[in-house]
Order: sequence, then C-alpha cells, then structure tokens
Amino acid sequence: MENVSTKPAGKLHVEVCFSPAIYPHKLTDNNFITVVVDILRASTSICAALDHGVKQIIPVGGIDQAKEFKKKGFTVACERDGKVLDFADVGNSPSDFLHHSFKEATIAYSTTNGTRTIQLASDADAIVIGSFVNLSSLAGWLISRNKNVVILCAAWKNLFNLEDSVYAGALCEKLLDETIFQTNCDSAKASLDLWSIAKKDLAGYLGKSSHRNRLKHLVSEEDFNYTVTPDTSHVIPCFKNGAIINLDD
Amino acid sequence: MENVSTKPAGKLHVEVCFSPAIYPHKLTDNNFITVVVDILRASTSICAALDHGVKQIIPVGGIDQAKEFKKKGFTVACERDGKVLDFADVGNSPSDFLHHSFKEATIAYSTTNGTRTIQLASDADAIVIGSFVNLSSLAGWLISRNKNVVILCAAWKNLFNLEDSVYAGALCEKLLDETIFQTNCDSAKASLDLWSIAKKDLAGYLGKSSHRNRLKHLVSEEDFNYTVTPDTSHVIPCFKNGAIINLDD
Repeated sequence: MENVSTKPAGKLHVEVCFSPAIYPHKLTDNNFITVVVDILRASTSICAALDHGVKQIIPVGGIDQAKEFKKKGFTVACERDGKVLDFADVGNSPSDFLHHSFKEATIAYSTTNGTRTIQLASDADAIVIGSFVNLSSLAGWLISRNKNVVILCAAWKNLFNLEDSVYAGALCEKLLDETIFQTNCDSAKASLDLWSIAKKDLAGYLGKSSHRNRLKHLVSEEDFNYTVTPDTSHVIPCFKNGAIINLDD
Repeated sequence: MENVSTKPAGKLHVEVCFSPAIYPHKLTDNNFITVVVDILRASTSICAALDHGVKQIIPVGGIDQAKEFKKKGFTVACERDGKVLDFADVGNSPSDFLHHSFKEATIAYSTTNGTRTIQLASDADAIVIGSFVNLSSLAGWLISRNKNVVILCAAWKNLFNLEDSVYAGALCEKLLDETIFQTNCDSAKASLDLWSIAKKDLAGYLGKSSHRNRLKHLVSEEDFNYTVTPDTSHVIPCFKNGAIINLDD
C-alpha cells in the first residue's frame, strides 16, 4: 500500500474521494486535512450561516436528535422535503441564513448525510467545510497549513454526484497551482477535467446534475445562484469539539 | 429510494459505478445486466484469450487457489509483479494469449480484484466483461437485450481509476445513442464528459492514469496498444456457472 509518507520531501499530496464509500480506502494516511463537501446543500448553508453572524453550528443527525437539541434550548435548523419542521426555528438552505439574524447564535443543524460524513473524517488532523462560496479563501488557508489534503465528497446516498466532484476539481486546481502540492490520484485528475468543462458555465453544468434535478422544487433560484457563485465569502468553517466554527473570525 | 422500475415504460436505464465500494448503493435493482470492467488488465486479457481460441476461463482468486487448479490439471494463468509464477503456465497480460495457442482450452485465470468484482455482481441477471477491444460488439449485444445496464468499474483497491471510468463513458455513449436507453446517473454523465476529452487521444490520456504509471514496467507497449485500440474483437465474454465463455461463439 502506497502512502503519502513515501512522497518526496516537501511535496504535499492532494487526494479526492468521490463518495464516503471510497474514503476508507484512501491512500493518504497521515498529516492531512480533510475537506468535507456537500454543495447541495449543507456545506454551502454552513458557509452562509457563519458568514452572516452565526457563531457556531452543531451538526446533528436525524429529527429525534434535532428535537433533543431544541428541548435543551438551542436554535434548530431542520427541514424535510423542503419544509421547516414545526419544532424547528429555521430551514437548512443558504437563504435561511442570509435573511435571518442569528448574531452570535449557536445553531443545531440537522443533516444526516453531513453528520455521517464528518464522523467518517475523524481520522484527519483537521476537518474543514468547502463550498464554491469560500473556494479561494479555503484554498489559501489550506496552502498555508503545510499538510496533505483529502477532499471528501459527501455524495448522495454514497453515489457519486456532479456538484461535489466538480467542486473538488475547482479546489484541486487552486491547490495544484502551488508547487508545494502534487497528485497521483486519478479522482483528482478526473475532477480537474470535469471542472475544466463545468467552469465555462457552472450553473448550466450543474443544472444537469441528478441531485439538482431531485432538489429542483426545494432549491430556490436564489439559493442555487448563491451556491454556484464562487468567492463571496472568506469563512473557513472548521469542525472542532463537536461544533463548526469560523477560523477566519 | 428510486429504482428503475419507476422509469417510464420502454426506457431502459444506464448506471455507472466507479468503484466496487459504490456498487452496493446503486439504484438499479431489477432487470439488469452488469458489465464488469478492469481495463488494465483482466477484462482486456479475457477478451484476448477468448478471441484467440480459449474456450472458457475460470476466474480464481489468490495464488493458493490458482495452485489448487493447477493440481487438478488446469492450465493456469497467474503472475505477480509482472512475473509468471513458477507453477503457472502463462501470465495475465493480453499478449500472453495473443501469442500462445490455447485452442479449446479451459484456463484458470488468477485475478484477486476481478474475482471479487464478479462475485459482487452476482445480483445481476447476467454478468459480461467489457473492454475497449470489444466495445462496439458488446454495446450492440447489450442493446439487443432489452435490459437495464450497470457498468461496474473494478477500480484499483476500491479507488476510482481513469481507464475503467473512461471506458464506462465510451460504452455509455454507444448505449445512449440508442433511444431505448436513458440515464439520470451523475457517474454516467461524468464518464461521458471524461470520454469526450479522452477519445481525442486515448493512449495519451490514459498515459496519465496512476494505474498505468504503476504498471508501466509491467505493461508492455504491445499490451498497452492492444488495450487502447477499440473494436478489434467481437467477443461477448459472459460469466456463467463459474466460468467465462464467449456468447458470440
């Protein structure tokens, strides 16, 4: 089994996992940061929330767990099928955080997929959250860390999805522009190729994503436009001690 | 959970799994054929063997199992690190079958990865083997079956690889050219995009594959050229009752 420690000194490695099902097989096994990506929509919403005053986000799994947090007095973001659940304060979309005031709030954010993905990444030295809205800022932060990078696509029920994979390509491009990074990972190379096609018209390209079509009635035009517009935010969302905080604060 | 039975009548579905680790999560769950793909090299070698007189191929796992078959009197194809093992009759490369005479032979072919992948696909109505050398013939055969198609990339230790994924795109293109097929699978769409880039110079494109580089000292120029040249063969290798036979016979 190859691992990154056999790479030439000074060169850091970038690896992409297109699905949580692939992550346990990854080659990178030491000195790495994992970037968790769930473009539609947890990772974009988390960036929006932190960028608009939320102090910390506690990712929680299913509805029962979200209710427990509500009982404890937390502000809770929880929706199913596009509807805010009656016990919750707010939904899970980016726009829920763009238009509400949660200054300094701690929010329990219900995301079954996201919570599972973050748990999976617990072998990393640090777990950060990536989306198009914080693309360049996160790339700059990663470049400054001197660690290998694993990009973990949350995917959809363990199935490859276009939006997370194309984002992986966009982030790979920024990292590999720096001479400190290299890759011998076929997923990284494929993601770069997909990004080279998608970046000419990102919204149009992701319009063909099966997940986007699945969510069409749940993702408003405003949310979608926010999601596919790079670099509107400087947040560096980092999962630490059970909560996601903004390292850029 | 979506499944293909909810699709409009008359439309068959194409799904791609980039790794065996993803296959258990696939959406297609009835009336389907699985195409197993291990371009470098089991699926290409199997096509070469059947195209050059071998009657049937028994895929066997590790070396111990291959030795058992040798004791029973089978002709055995088994190599490790590019060397034919001393008890074996022949190696695992395409050229091993292009230049030897195994007319009407039954060969036990040792491939740990391939054997595992074929076992995984046992939920399919039929299991066939795809490679560039039988691309159009297999596509034609699949089109004539009136069944959904799942393309299962053997990958490399469960990690996405370029050669299997690009082949998936080539096969998807042929199937989706037919109006009876459709896809809402993001992996299929991505594979089509990768193939649209790769097909301009397939050998050059796959030259950047990490697996190709890993195998560079093991894959001769002759083998590589054979592997990346489409449509030199009409074989339809099908796994049935423990052995792979040619349905085109």
